[in-house]
Amino acid sequence: MSADAGWLDALRWDADGLIPAIAQDATSGKVLMLAWMNREALERTVATGEAVYWSRSRSRFWHKGEESGHVQKVLDLRTDCDSDALLLSIEQVGGIACHTGRQSCFYRRFSGESWEDAEPVLKDPKDIYQGNPKK
Amino acid sequence: MSADAGWLDALRWDADGLIPAIAQDATSGKVLMLAWMNREALERTVATGEAVYWSRSRSRFWHKGEESGHVQKVLDLRTDCDSDALLLSIEQVGGIACHTGRQSCFYRRFSGESWEDAEPVLKDPKDIYQGNPKK
Repeated sequence: MSADAGWLDALRWDADGLIPAIAQDATSGKVLMLAWMNREALERTVATGEAVYWSRSRSRFWHKGEESGHVQKVLDLRTDCDSDALLLSIEQVGGIACHTGRQSCFYRRFSGESWEDAEPVLKDPKDIYQGNPKK
Repeated sequence: MSADAGWLDALRWDADGLIPAIAQDATSGKVLMLAWMNREALERTVATGEAVYWSRSRSRFWHKGEESGHVQKVLDLRTDCDSDALLLSIEQVGGIACHTGRQSCFYRRFSGESWEDAEPVLKDPKDIYQGNPKK
């Protein structure tokens, strides 16, 4: 971790101290999920090389894959022109990013009238989390 | 546009009535930008087939490409497992999504110490906006 926090200060954190982070599969280019980071989550991500988010629903750090084993190895990290979003190019261990057992969290496609499931479940969440389903 | 707003109600809008929307190039898979939509912006997007965002900095609708001509034709629209983010698969007219003249807004790569420009400028913004640069 860099002792100089300039790279963290350079980002535009929202009123809650968060920034949205997109995780994209480095190989397929598939967008797997959007989650949130605070400063420490991003520091931990950089320090460990694995994605660490801030869970807004649980108000705690969320080392992605901590329960499922489906960690995300960060190969490339970018911000955008406004410095208010992050893009992580990752290797998705296990090939499953979503707590529903799908490759991507973006599996609900707009049909013109409603949102319809458009991606297969690759693994039963029960088998991923052994009775404690969290994403 | 559907008369039934159920598909809009199904989304989880934030306290400001917004949802983050990722625009991904349908051909290359490149993530081009992250912007925000409110309900009407999403309705307009669906009605016109072109991405319409809500500009938080200018507090107005932002039909992407309205000045530059670099509109985004929406080929596929998805939401995620939590219904709190959108993913647009788009055709980027002009091949440039960023107001800096780059293909993608995510051109600033983390070097380990700082954010460094990692993508070429394809067209001078002056030539894109003719003296009125806005993204």
